[in-house]
Amino acid sequence: MEGEGVKLLGHWASPFALRVHWALKLKGVEYDYQEEDLPNKSPLLLQYNPVHKKIPVLVHNGKPIAESSVILEYIDETWKKNPLLPEDPYERAKARFWAKFIDDKCVPGIFRTFSKVGEEQQKIAKEARENLKLLEGELDKKRVFGDSRIGFIDVASAWIICWAQIVEEIVDIKLIDAEEMPSLVAWFENVLEAAPVLKECTPPKDKLLEHNKGFHKMLVASASP
Amino acid sequence: MEGEGVKLLGHWASPFALRVHWALKLKGVEYDYQEEDLPNKSPLLLQYNPVHKKIPVLVHNGKPIAESSVILEYIDETWKKNPLLPEDPYERAKARFWAKFIDDKCVPGIFRTFSKVGEEQQKIAKEARENLKLLEGELDKKRVFGDSRIGFIDVASAWIICWAQIVEEIVDIKLIDAEEMPSLVAWFENVLEAAPVLKECTPPKDKLLEHNKGFHKMLVASASP
Repeated sequence: MEGEGVKLLGHWASPFALRVHWALKLKGVEYDYQEEDLPNKSPLLLQYNPVHKKIPVLVHNGKPIAESSVILEYIDETWKKNPLLPEDPYERAKARFWAKFIDDKCVPGIFRTFSKVGEEQQKIAKEARENLKLLEGELDKKRVFGDSRIGFIDVASAWIICWAQIVEEIVDIKLIDAEEMPSLVAWFENVLEAAPVLKECTPPKDKLLEHNKGFHKMLVASASP
Repeated sequence: MEGEGVKLLGHWASPFALRVHWALKLKGVEYDYQEEDLPNKSPLLLQYNPVHKKIPVLVHNGKPIAESSVILEYIDETWKKNPLLPEDPYERAKARFWAKFIDDKCVPGIFRTFSKVGEEQQKIAKEARENLKLLEGELDKKRVFGDSRIGFIDVASAWIICWAQIVEEIVDIKLIDAEEMPSLVAWFENVLEAAPVLKECTPPKDKLLEHNKGFHKMLVASASP
């Protein structure tokens, strides 16, 4: 039985855990972190997320919350400092719409460009670029989505730029073209620059690249006939 | 340019539009309804949801909101009567978690049992039943998820029972067994009974069944070699 306090169960290379780190850091919430060994999940993780058995899980005063998008809303409603969502219901809806668009369209596009090969991969990457262009249009020359300050979309999703660049390097397919998507290409770095407190929990890109290179080799090997 | 007021662009057989109807009815919000001809979408729909080009879209004082889950949150934040989400952040997180579980796991399970055939269909239906059993465990002998009154999960998702029963009848595969899932099997009817105002915008089951029988014939014909 967990007692008082805030605990995050995560994995260092998970962007979905990163969202939660970022939200807690921005809010200035102190928390314990438990790194999970994903092939050997801890009894705590299985107890706290019996439905999905996945990280991240946030445990607050002994009560678990799973699903990173749900956790972000919980954090924003529980700790009021540095609000992630705007106050106006229409602006909140817009933030939720774009965060959902990224989760439903851009994230699978980037991940599947990584995991597929051949013609299917090319088709997925083309679609991903089209969706990322829509996102570029929405970011529209701003440094971050929150504009004057980092907001919900930035915390939930800026990591896609770093991950897309890692995928580009591993599979040698361009996803985010600097000329076509000048705002988007700078987004991740802009967020880290605007809130240096996020840097301390963000894994170094070269470590992520090495990790995902290994992961990609395994994927390709298991996909071979 | 739309002026003041509330307008919903939908389709009578869409459960995602039904969620929005239900939320507006529960809140007592007056609204105009525009039925869309989905093969010939209206210029208004394309203008208001250029990203997904899908119904439902809610237009409030000329400003459009797309994505039914985002619309539900907007409605709940804009019209305070009969709150859909509970007040406590942890209870809100639980409601969002289960609504997302249904959208991510149960809805695709039901829809894909409808659209696939053979072994793949049997496998999907088995998985769908397992996920529905988890939901039964959460509903746990209550009449509705909101318990004392209809809440977010009920409005977002009770339709899955009616749709699952339609799929069962068309493809002749059991998804929701009354003995195994006694709470779930009664859920949709319990919601309509608890809030009769919802009945007026809920399509009759036999009309939905006929519509989906036609749709299924088309699907099966186009899937044949």
